[in-house]
Amino acid sequence: MINKHLATIDAAVQALHGRTFFAAFPENPSPEIYGADADAQGRARFAALRDQPFAELLQGAPEGWVGEEESPYEQQPLGITYPYYSPETLIKNAQDAFTEWRKLKPALRAALLTEALEGMKSRFFEIAYATMHTTGQAYMMSFQASGPHAADRALEAIAAGYEEQTRFPEDTRWEKPMGKYSIALTKTWRAVPKGLALVIGCSTFPTWNSVPGMFASLVTGNPTIIKPHPKAVLPMAIVIAEVQKVLVEHNLNPCICQLAVDAADRLIAKDLAENPAVKLIDYTGGSPFGNYLEGLKGKTVFTEKTGVNSIILDSCADLDQVAQNLAFSVSLYSGQMCTAPQNFFIPAAGVQVGDALVPYEEVVQRLSAAVTGLATNPKAAPHVLGAIQSAATHERVKQLAFDGGRSILAHGPVDNPTFKNARTCSPSIHEIGADKVEQFSQELFGPIMLVIKTKDTQESIRLAAQLARECGAISCGAYTTDPVIKEQIMDEMSLAGTPVSFNLTGGIYVNQNAGFSDFHVTGGNPAGNASFTNPEFVVKRFTWVGFREPA
Amino acid sequence: MINKHLATIDAAVQALHGRTFFAAFPENPSPEIYGADADAQGRARFAALRDQPFAELLQGAPEGWVGEEESPYEQQPLGITYPYYSPETLIKNAQDAFTEWRKLKPALRAALLTEALEGMKSRFFEIAYATMHTTGQAYMMSFQASGPHAADRALEAIAAGYEEQTRFPEDTRWEKPMGKYSIALTKTWRAVPKGLALVIGCSTFPTWNSVPGMFASLVTGNPTIIKPHPKAVLPMAIVIAEVQKVLVEHNLNPCICQLAVDAADRLIAKDLAENPAVKLIDYTGGSPFGNYLEGLKGKTVFTEKTGVNSIILDSCADLDQVAQNLAFSVSLYSGQMCTAPQNFFIPAAGVQVGDALVPYEEVVQRLSAAVTGLATNPKAAPHVLGAIQSAATHERVKQLAFDGGRSILAHGPVDNPTFKNARTCSPSIHEIGADKVEQFSQELFGPIMLVIKTKDTQESIRLAAQLARECGAISCGAYTTDPVIKEQIMDEMSLAGTPVSFNLTGGIYVNQNAGFSDFHVTGGNPAGNASFTNPEFVVKRFTWVGFREPA
Repeated sequence: MINKHLATIDAAVQALHGRTFFAAFPENPSPEIYGADADAQGRARFAALRDQPFAELLQGAPEGWVGEEESPYEQQPLGITYPYYSPETLIKNAQDAFTEWRKLKPALRAALLTEALEGMKSRFFEIAYATMHTTGQAYMMSFQASGPHAADRALEAIAAGYEEQTRFPEDTRWEKPMGKYSIALTKTWRAVPKGLALVIGCSTFPTWNSVPGMFASLVTGNPTIIKPHPKAVLPMAIVIAEVQKVLVEHNLNPCICQLAVDAADRLIAKDLAENPAVKLIDYTGGSPFGNYLEGLKGKTVFTEKTGVNSIILDSCADLDQVAQNLAFSVSLYSGQMCTAPQNFFIPAAGVQVGDALVPYEEVVQRLSAAVTGLATNPKAAPHVLGAIQSAATHERVKQLAFDGGRSILAHGPVDNPTFKNARTCSPSIHEIGADKVEQFSQELFGPIMLVIKTKDTQESIRLAAQLARECGAISCGAYTTDPVIKEQIMDEMSLAGTPVSFNLTGGIYVNQNAGFSDFHVTGGNPAGNASFTNPEFVVKRFTWVGFREPA
Repeated sequence: MINKHLATIDAAVQALHGRTFFAAFPENPSPEIYGADADAQGRARFAALRDQPFAELLQGAPEGWVGEEESPYEQQPLGITYPYYSPETLIKNAQDAFTEWRKLKPALRAALLTEALEGMKSRFFEIAYATMHTTGQAYMMSFQASGPHAADRALEAIAAGYEEQTRFPEDTRWEKPMGKYSIALTKTWRAVPKGLALVIGCSTFPTWNSVPGMFASLVTGNPTIIKPHPKAVLPMAIVIAEVQKVLVEHNLNPCICQLAVDAADRLIAKDLAENPAVKLIDYTGGSPFGNYLEGLKGKTVFTEKTGVNSIILDSCADLDQVAQNLAFSVSLYSGQMCTAPQNFFIPAAGVQVGDALVPYEEVVQRLSAAVTGLATNPKAAPHVLGAIQSAATHERVKQLAFDGGRSILAHGPVDNPTFKNARTCSPSIHEIGADKVEQFSQELFGPIMLVIKTKDTQESIRLAAQLARECGAISCGAYTTDPVIKEQIMDEMSLAGTPVSFNLTGGIYVNQNAGFSDFHVTGGNPAGNASFTNPEFVVKRFTWVGFREPA
């Protein structure tokens, strides 16, 4: 078991260093890869879980059962309840499990966790349906993001954590020449886990955003409590069940990895986060709670909060290709991705396309037409836009209006033949003046696209960089055929800690990023203080301690 | 120049990974190594600097001249003044230098900084005398700690920073197979410095404790302002002058690395630390100011604060060797080392020595005799104990008394034939009951040794670990011949983030630690949040940002 998984982990370590294409879990849900019945079985297993208590967890007798998930596709409850444990019980269980987990060698922890990812793989389809019916993601994204892509990100964290913990020798002989004699010491080092870990999930990417921190904390020896968003528990409940299964199979305490659900009448994230035994916190979600967590004393906190992502349009070869690419980016999962572009900076003079200068208004209309074309394409729209996770997001789009702004495109429903009652919404487009920074300097989560008419590209760059520095940004797209402008954008956005995708057209989008290659969030601006998966993401989870004695 | 230094840096990277003995700068101040006249020239250069403005810095016209250093050996002012610049000027100068420094490749920055260490090496003796007459360290420690050992720690930081910045490719081709076609992207990554860096030094180890953070921030592209302790400026002024010389020789802005001195009438550390442009802060000193710095928003802070170091006496082979080793550890630089032991836990039943159980009182008396023997040995004492840096430390030793405690050994002067007016003090020993935790749970900086009579070794371990966890510890020494006790100490102290030296006798001491091998401070307890030099010490100083475009 160990050797097989260590080979996978070693390959992942190599991939992380090379940053070329690598995927341990195939993203294509085809029968050839996953088996002829995999999809149907996954769908059936999901259906069987509904209107039942989720009975797979091995973490002891619960103090109650709670559940409040609803399908955005049906606008009906899932009817699943989860075992509730008080924060005190969860902490005590985790403390009781600490010593046996921390005393395992990093290689064994890494192998056990990779084994759990194999278990997760066997349930990718079930997780896909669980994700669809909690987040509103379309089927393909639900499969890919919550299944193989999440598992790849988890493996990435395992690999990075394993590499760092084995970076220095377990023991060595240190011999200092002193002229006529020498002093010889035997030295040993241990990578000591920090303590208990907490992972707080979000409602839109329940596994993808939670497994990196979860597996990073686990591989470094910290018992981990995962508290998903109350509206998106099931995908992580399945992943945690698979981890617990592997733990028990190896005679380990399943409470090394526990699911925590909020009580029916109160949220428990603060109770858990403030408990002195909790040393590590991973969080995905809104900035106010993220800032609160970052401010807690005595904790190492990893956050992905909110940001304002920009597109800088300067010049390109083919405007239609650009418009289609961008229309897809704002429509994908109805703009409910942390990497979705929001602010589109377009020079008042227009965009240089080949030899021609396309006027500003024409650029705006072609973007709008591309968005409309996608949202009204019955073959594509439901599979790209999916559904709206929360009624609050839907409401935000409906209520949106800007003082002095212009509505370019109104939102509307997206016809979904499979789910007649789906909560859907196509993107709205608003034009805002470049001087109204306060109107476009916060994240407007959902299918909302703001067009900002700037004096010129210099102003576009200045605004995009300023917003990223001051308000955070997770992605940036730029279109320019000018190498000087390109270098300027790279330089200014790099100082704002924001990755830039240049001149994307065709089947690759600014909001997608690849495990083992693209760092997700940089940690270098207010959108978050951590990055999947750079060395900092794992080294802060343990302490190097050395011992020595005369040899 | 670059290739020569990169060979040194590569050797340092290898040493960091192997953690076997490595030293780039010889610690032996012998004429064979450093030249027949090196010591005399260094002494003369130091003498020539006295009662003068320090005119070597290249950072522009000063706004004033200040200086308040005094020699602990003479109890007389050095009379040296340093150029004063307001915090605003220092920040602006550093900002102006940022772009040219950050745009250099990490390899070039690393080579330039290693070149500066060569310049520092040429002044090791001058730095030694500067250190003696500011800190009170004896000559040999002044030479080794402020010269070669500090330079090795600086090289360690350069090497670690260089390795981390070159860990991922500058660019790569990423090609994702999509069945019939593939998506190919060119990806590039930049290690982006965080901004301005500040280093706040201490009065006892002005270079050794400051150069790791200084060179770590510089090698990762952050312009760095170094504010030494007002009583120990000269050693760092010389180091900074050597860095500036190399910068100017390579047509770079010398303000990439600036000396900041406190004004005559006010301290400027807070002004600098709170400036929004300052993103990185390295600090060595007392816990209250360190805790204040750690609490600043929007800063990455690296601290070495205060702790309480323990010795656990359980069993040994030769008690006299142990007593002599420990007497040396408490006497070295009169206990003014952050790694000096303070609390000596001894079981009430005594210490097992070979087949015999030596009674508690005899153990105490033999420790006391060993301390007295060293402090009154005219050939050794002045060279081991040196002088007391500050009158406040001297006063603390004089005033020390414990309610209910017993004085085992009174402090006294240490005769110094060379410096009749030296401020000296031999260690005092006090016995405190194990139940009086509040009496031995804070650092009593200086030549103070507390003997704590415990019920048994289990209580000794429990108290040592508890103090380390709650109050911090930088070192721990343990004497035991029992492998079970040894593993228990390793396990409990590892959870308290404290390195342990076992059974040291002869010429190696618990308070010494070696560059490239021993991590200094772990970051895992309240004595400090950073470690020389683990990967975390450098990766937090820059941000990985990626860029991509169709290939």
